[in-house]
Amino acid sequence: MDNITQIAFNARQAANVLQTITTAQKSIFLNHIHSKLASAKSDILAANKVDKDLALKQVEAGKLSSSLYKRLDLEGPGKFETMLQGIKDIDQLDDPAGKVQQATKLDNGLELYRVSCPVGVLLVIFEARPEVVVNIAALAIKSGNAAILKGGKESFHTCSAISKAIREAMDDAGAAAAKNAEGEDADALNLTDAVQIVESRQDIDGLLKQDKYIDMVIPRGSNALVKHIQWNTRIPVLGHADGLCSIYVAESAKLDLAKKVVVDAKTTYPAACNSTETLLVHSSHLDPDLFQQLARTLVVDHGVTLKCDPKSLANLQQESVAVLFQDKADHLQASNDEDYDTEFLELTLAVKTVESMTEAMDHINEHGSKHTDAILTESEAEAKKFMAGVDAAGVYWNASTRFADGFRYGFGAEVGVSTNKTHARGPVGLEGLVIYKYQLHGNGHASGDYGAGEGKRPYLHERIKVQDKESLGELSNKRQRLD
Amino acid sequence: MDNITQIAFNARQAANVLQTITTAQKSIFLNHIHSKLASAKSDILAANKVDKDLALKQVEAGKLSSSLYKRLDLEGPGKFETMLQGIKDIDQLDDPAGKVQQATKLDNGLELYRVSCPVGVLLVIFEARPEVVVNIAALAIKSGNAAILKGGKESFHTCSAISKAIREAMDDAGAAAAKNAEGEDADALNLTDAVQIVESRQDIDGLLKQDKYIDMVIPRGSNALVKHIQWNTRIPVLGHADGLCSIYVAESAKLDLAKKVVVDAKTTYPAACNSTETLLVHSSHLDPDLFQQLARTLVVDHGVTLKCDPKSLANLQQESVAVLFQDKADHLQASNDEDYDTEFLELTLAVKTVESMTEAMDHINEHGSKHTDAILTESEAEAKKFMAGVDAAGVYWNASTRFADGFRYGFGAEVGVSTNKTHARGPVGLEGLVIYKYQLHGNGHASGDYGAGEGKRPYLHERIKVQDKESLGELSNKRQRLD
Repeated sequence: MDNITQIAFNARQAANVLQTITTAQKSIFLNHIHSKLASAKSDILAANKVDKDLALKQVEAGKLSSSLYKRLDLEGPGKFETMLQGIKDIDQLDDPAGKVQQATKLDNGLELYRVSCPVGVLLVIFEARPEVVVNIAALAIKSGNAAILKGGKESFHTCSAISKAIREAMDDAGAAAAKNAEGEDADALNLTDAVQIVESRQDIDGLLKQDKYIDMVIPRGSNALVKHIQWNTRIPVLGHADGLCSIYVAESAKLDLAKKVVVDAKTTYPAACNSTETLLVHSSHLDPDLFQQLARTLVVDHGVTLKCDPKSLANLQQESVAVLFQDKADHLQASNDEDYDTEFLELTLAVKTVESMTEAMDHINEHGSKHTDAILTESEAEAKKFMAGVDAAGVYWNASTRFADGFRYGFGAEVGVSTNKTHARGPVGLEGLVIYKYQLHGNGHASGDYGAGEGKRPYLHERIKVQDKESLGELSNKRQRLD
Repeated sequence: MDNITQIAFNARQAANVLQTITTAQKSIFLNHIHSKLASAKSDILAANKVDKDLALKQVEAGKLSSSLYKRLDLEGPGKFETMLQGIKDIDQLDDPAGKVQQATKLDNGLELYRVSCPVGVLLVIFEARPEVVVNIAALAIKSGNAAILKGGKESFHTCSAISKAIREAMDDAGAAAAKNAEGEDADALNLTDAVQIVESRQDIDGLLKQDKYIDMVIPRGSNALVKHIQWNTRIPVLGHADGLCSIYVAESAKLDLAKKVVVDAKTTYPAACNSTETLLVHSSHLDPDLFQQLARTLVVDHGVTLKCDPKSLANLQQESVAVLFQDKADHLQASNDEDYDTEFLELTLAVKTVESMTEAMDHINEHGSKHTDAILTESEAEAKKFMAGVDAAGVYWNASTRFADGFRYGFGAEVGVSTNKTHARGPVGLEGLVIYKYQLHGNGHASGDYGAGEGKRPYLHERIKVQDKESLGELSNKRQRLD
């Protein structure tokens, strides 16, 4: 077995164990990781210093951005502690595995349960942010998945130090976790390889071929990275690409609301994937002046550059209006076709006039990235049509696209934002890391006894009532009490 | 736009409309398809005759199996009517789209709903069984998806005739469906391209590149086909490959139960993907004689050939036992390593002796295809461990693997059985053809107002109670009544 296959195989072995452990056992592993990282703090920060020193030289040589350098740094005030607190937070979340999603009585004594379970082995590729190792490791363990991680190369030394501590913690915790569920004599659980890191792009290329052992690839990064991976593996990919979000200002939209939402969506964090890149304005707003006031606020108060279609540009550049923009006339520019397919990730907004909501929806469905799109309207009927007809992970009514985020949605933690259309869509929390299996409980039942014809039995297909987020244990205790 | 891109683009346009239509409108389309197919029966059977005549020559030349020829035939007694009835059955199923899966109050007036919605455009590749066109078309429309279909080439004329009728029906129904929801003056809905068929393997290769327009590929067929597709597209693939199912006869298993379940699982339809291919027997059953009796029933009463590991083979071939097998001693053979990775799809069963459940689970996790695996045991604790520790879409306790089927599970219809580990697993019904979007309903809410710090608001993250399978309309009516 070559080295890469061994990594994948070991991850699968760990996944086989992880899928069987209890919530209490997961807690034991997470708490050991927390303690071990706390006591390894100085080692980890020393490794971080090595990465930072190397990165600083790159920054000075103009080969690396200072924002990347900043993200590398684990020494900033409270940063290490926040990273540790994240483990505790994830430990407190509801265990996503073992929940009964569906239950059906097929016949007397023959019951079918659809129960959530881990996906298995995850391969996660992410940027040079060392705390992500800890975050993803905790999410993986909490959901019962093994993980193979590859961080940005600038964070290599830090990630290695963190990973070493996690590995030691998983090793140490194996005995305590086994005792917790199986009693004093239990053999220690071997989960040492539950979280592994790999170093190079070449390792990734090898791992993408390990479809026998790896169940899902989660690339966080550029569209180019995601596409490269999708073309080079048969393992399902949960794509976390960038976002091209739009806001449509409908005919009945009010100025104050439009100002508040659009300013928030464009200016609070322009580099985020949930920031708005395209503004679609119903032509009725060109006269009277909602559009002009909105544009003025964006340009003058917030320094946004508008790339406008001919109609909206002419509207803003007419003599009586141009004066509103004071010395920022250069922030009003003509758009070209490409601008409507561009994620600016800065204070630039493409603007297009539309004659109807249908035109707005068609534009979004053709040019958007199916991330998050909003309509501003006073009409509920119109909002409903927009939310049904726009094909995106998030469809918003009178709210900023910036709400598209796992923490804001209340998931407690997120793996990223998926622009996939299968498995998991939008902000992905722990629920995106589980799938389900069907458990069938019988008593010697044979399929040949059922169906049409002489002596055959019909299926009952009676739905068994399940409480929201009920575990199979809870459900079966309740059913025994009822019997 | 080349021809293939045009097909994909047209499908996307249809999907944009389909995602907005009501359950009643879907019914109108399905009923039109039903009527149109009924009235086109003679044309369709004439086309079927052409396919059959061509196929018969192939069968005579030994180039095609007679079972394939039989599956082509639409003229058999009741076959056409069963196909038509399938449309009515699917029409009666619960609409999988528009259901609220999760609802959260983020703040006053800011509510987040996770609502099921169609995946979008499906590319479905299937065997030469013409009634599958009708079945998949009905499933696609009911779930709100557009579909591009490619059947086995032997069924081409029949599929074309069916597809022509479906196209005409979708065209005819557009006006009636629009009126149903929007009133007399509504423009007809254009869903003519909701279901398209393509002819050649080359078309498929082209369509696999249309990731801008196609959202999911569903290949039904051989492992080789599924793998070829997975390696040649970045579109998510819902793999419907074959199954290597196992049954583990645990220490406490009873003979009668084991006979009943194993005979059913191996002999009722050996070519099915849910038939059992490997029998794992706890070594305690070699003496006394559960294993010998079970083997005798399989071999003598049902003509099964057993490919045995050395220990089990020696057990059956000892003098006092061999006599049980009468003239079928040749049905007892030594296995080789490959047999445990082989889907025989005929009356052949690989047999392996194991010393423990752990060994059985390890064998299944390494050699199985994650389709369906069963344990036969009187011990609930052991069954639970098996069902947690075996990584398969179906994990059964004292029941035949042949139950793994959408109709038997009560789904009413199935697209196939997925051996994927993401999106949808096991038998896939209408629910596997939907995903979700997040609807956020606000009133001018901006993300910048929330968080920690001076003047910022916390998120409420209050769960809104949702009934099982409740639509957003029902939920919002109820909430208005409560207000």
